[in-house]
Amino acid sequence: MKIKVKFLDIGTEPTVIISKEDSLKIGAKDNDRVKIDGKGSTTALLNVSDFVSPGEAVLSGNLRNRIKASDGDELNIVYANSPESVRNIRKKMDSGKLSKEEISAIVADILENRLSKIEISAWLTALYINGMDIEEIAAFTEAMVDTGDRVEFDRSPVYDFHSMGGVPGNKITPIVVSIVAAAGLMLPKTSSRAISSACGTSDFVETFCDVEMDAETLKRISEEVGGVLAWGGAMNLAPVDDLVIKVEHPLGINPRAQLLASILSKKLAIGATHLVVDIPTGSGTKVPTIEVAREYARDFMDLGDKLKIHVECAITYADQPVGSAIGPRLEARECIRILEGEKHPLSVIEKACDIAGIILEMEGMTNGGERAREILDSGAAMKKFREIVAAQGGNYDIKSDDLVPGEFTAAVVSTKSGYVHTISNKDLVSVAKAAGSPSDKGAGIMLMMKKGQRVEKGDVLFEIYGDNEAKVRRAKELSTKYKPYDIEGMLLKRVAPPRTR
Amino acid sequence: MKIKVKFLDIGTEPTVIISKEDSLKIGAKDNDRVKIDGKGSTTALLNVSDFVSPGEAVLSGNLRNRIKASDGDELNIVYANSPESVRNIRKKMDSGKLSKEEISAIVADILENRLSKIEISAWLTALYINGMDIEEIAAFTEAMVDTGDRVEFDRSPVYDFHSMGGVPGNKITPIVVSIVAAAGLMLPKTSSRAISSACGTSDFVETFCDVEMDAETLKRISEEVGGVLAWGGAMNLAPVDDLVIKVEHPLGINPRAQLLASILSKKLAIGATHLVVDIPTGSGTKVPTIEVAREYARDFMDLGDKLKIHVECAITYADQPVGSAIGPRLEARECIRILEGEKHPLSVIEKACDIAGIILEMEGMTNGGERAREILDSGAAMKKFREIVAAQGGNYDIKSDDLVPGEFTAAVVSTKSGYVHTISNKDLVSVAKAAGSPSDKGAGIMLMMKKGQRVEKGDVLFEIYGDNEAKVRRAKELSTKYKPYDIEGMLLKRVAPPRTR
Repeated sequence: MKIKVKFLDIGTEPTVIISKEDSLKIGAKDNDRVKIDGKGSTTALLNVSDFVSPGEAVLSGNLRNRIKASDGDELNIVYANSPESVRNIRKKMDSGKLSKEEISAIVADILENRLSKIEISAWLTALYINGMDIEEIAAFTEAMVDTGDRVEFDRSPVYDFHSMGGVPGNKITPIVVSIVAAAGLMLPKTSSRAISSACGTSDFVETFCDVEMDAETLKRISEEVGGVLAWGGAMNLAPVDDLVIKVEHPLGINPRAQLLASILSKKLAIGATHLVVDIPTGSGTKVPTIEVAREYARDFMDLGDKLKIHVECAITYADQPVGSAIGPRLEARECIRILEGEKHPLSVIEKACDIAGIILEMEGMTNGGERAREILDSGAAMKKFREIVAAQGGNYDIKSDDLVPGEFTAAVVSTKSGYVHTISNKDLVSVAKAAGSPSDKGAGIMLMMKKGQRVEKGDVLFEIYGDNEAKVRRAKELSTKYKPYDIEGMLLKRVAPPRTR
Repeated sequence: MKIKVKFLDIGTEPTVIISKEDSLKIGAKDNDRVKIDGKGSTTALLNVSDFVSPGEAVLSGNLRNRIKASDGDELNIVYANSPESVRNIRKKMDSGKLSKEEISAIVADILENRLSKIEISAWLTALYINGMDIEEIAAFTEAMVDTGDRVEFDRSPVYDFHSMGGVPGNKITPIVVSIVAAAGLMLPKTSSRAISSACGTSDFVETFCDVEMDAETLKRISEEVGGVLAWGGAMNLAPVDDLVIKVEHPLGINPRAQLLASILSKKLAIGATHLVVDIPTGSGTKVPTIEVAREYARDFMDLGDKLKIHVECAITYADQPVGSAIGPRLEARECIRILEGEKHPLSVIEKACDIAGIILEMEGMTNGGERAREILDSGAAMKKFREIVAAQGGNYDIKSDDLVPGEFTAAVVSTKSGYVHTISNKDLVSVAKAAGSPSDKGAGIMLMMKKGQRVEKGDVLFEIYGDNEAKVRRAKELSTKYKPYDIEGMLLKRVAPPRTR
């Protein structure tokens, strides 16, 4: 039927809002599809609302260009079928194995906004419950790559590494990239911003240089300098992933197939030929036990085989934060201090050299870890780091002291004496976020005590930093509520034999 | 943070739209929850949009009353956690068995709009894949009843019947109710409008009397006359069901647990003590085979046991439409003709008397089917029907000829000679809907031929009726495309032995 349209700049899903009366005439219901014909033609989701008068339709602004129409135009709106790929989603609900074509159709329809949040949620839930085999995941990964750009390097091999995340304070990326590039290899590293964490790699790297660059710039810097520290989100690499994450996030799930395809698609798009995957393992991370970590490692390697990427995995300790600093400027400072020659915190140095070492061994070097440590200690890594920073618009003469944490602070002290028995990653992340991290660049946490250390009542366990006094206060309140540190005596539990009567 | 709000009357989910900048300050992402404090306080879904300026928030109109605020107010908006029931949904994704309390929390949060479409979709998908046992379904049914009103009758027993649907032309309800009420029993029948079908019972009953009434009126008419033909949607019976259907519909799924709970909750809310469930079985319906029908029958009876409703099931033939008419006035006319004494179509008469017969036997009568037929043939059913129609504001002297089908018609003829081998319910429904059914009351289809009948080339297979010429033309085009009738010779397939070389 012909309806007078009006555009309204709202919402993310392409939507047409009409009255109940008109929906009956069209024979379409809430969340059905309708087709709208202007000079262009498209489908959109139907939203039935009491607020719209019969004969009128309110269209989300993102439809304006697709149908090439303006406010007041009378356009034909009719019922439209759901995209064919909804059938493929139902097939996965029914535990079916999907073909390459069926998977590609789903991925393309998500990218083009043809599948609604309802349908994407059903897809993710079906993936979470019924899973995919490696063949399906490989097809899924390639379909995701096909939605975006691919970088093609003139140099080979192309090294890369990726951390599955979940452990706060994991600031090793600039160190690893600098060591590997200093060794003459190429590592075009793309990182992410925080999704649910306190601070992603790009969140802290952008405190000292630009991370937003296009694929062309990434290619040029990588080939010239050997390394780069880019924000993957600025490039058009497997862009469908971002749309899926928006739906995945509120459900608090990360289906294995989606997780694997998401990681490998970015690596395939960047042209990686060799990849090290860091699997942080510990309570409160995505990977709670070594057994689960081994399963992921197997998946990554199998998938690498299918996709022709040489994959090795590093299962790393993640029962507490890596190093002492959490939050953008705090992490940047700790990271650069190590490049400058600081020998502390050991956990950051060891982890960075271990990962860099695996990459050096992939190139055929022996004793990669020791070689990495030599490159770090010699100052060659710092020199390479300066080159990377300068290439990304930062200051070649960067010093760790340039990174000044927030002016407001609060100390959290122990209420008893004993030993640090556990530290909750999850609770520390909540506290750091409450303090303003990662959007407030000076916000975060400095840990004064780590696991196993002796603590006296009144000792400072960690310090909260922030750019905003109220947020620091709120973070301190949360610390009292969550108690991220568990302090115990040496005797954790007394087990006595049953008394005889 | 404090944000200046503006209300916009859009959408069904309570939504707050803010800029990317402000979302980073709040630390909340698209599809997260935020809490808004006006004079009242509530949570809503966050939508991050480029169209909103920093410092401003656009709120969906349904939040106006909840937070008691007006355009221009500066309100505090902060990050809020998801409802606890999201955990219960995840438990079902992980194949867990849900407790009564966990199920109630989900149902209550759906009713109060606290769960988003994304979460409801995940819930339905998890239900579809992992299912529920009868104990969980019983708890689910009772939780759904608790979301609405319950009717309590002063008379007992309270008979009821329900058809699972999926077969077009199933116009037996007024006949069954009239027979049962004429026998002195009480049957307060609530029906639905079409969801995906061409014409629901309420869609055709409302062509001759009012179907929208409150629970009080339903109770009064049922107790005085013995029967009623109400639209369930006008009453507040298990209202959460409607919210779920909106999400279920675009996915094209109907999880067994949801289907059973949906049906039984309405019956429990109406106070039914005895229930006959009609399970139409045939290709193109929800229940393709007798085996599947038996499983449903077992489920309905087990669930009836738990809920203290005496349930019997009738597995009925549904390989083709029931009777000849599809569409509101056409079905009403065919139905009333039978009450007036017409002996055709036999399929409608037999099915109505079989179902009514089971109910009479529940009351303790013998040979229920024959007894039902006597009540129909004697005119007692028609007299009772007149009383019901009059009680619902219709004309006591109603005649079938009062129901005039649409003025525009088109005949669909056979392109070859042979026998009617199959009739596609699904395709006929599409054609009837294209003709305008159920919103155009005169629209629909009259079948001239049914399965097994001899057809000559050029014979009329069915006639399309409509109130709108263009729609009838479109329906005829669809008929040519879909070919709902399959005409074959007596020899369907020739199977020859393999030739010897």
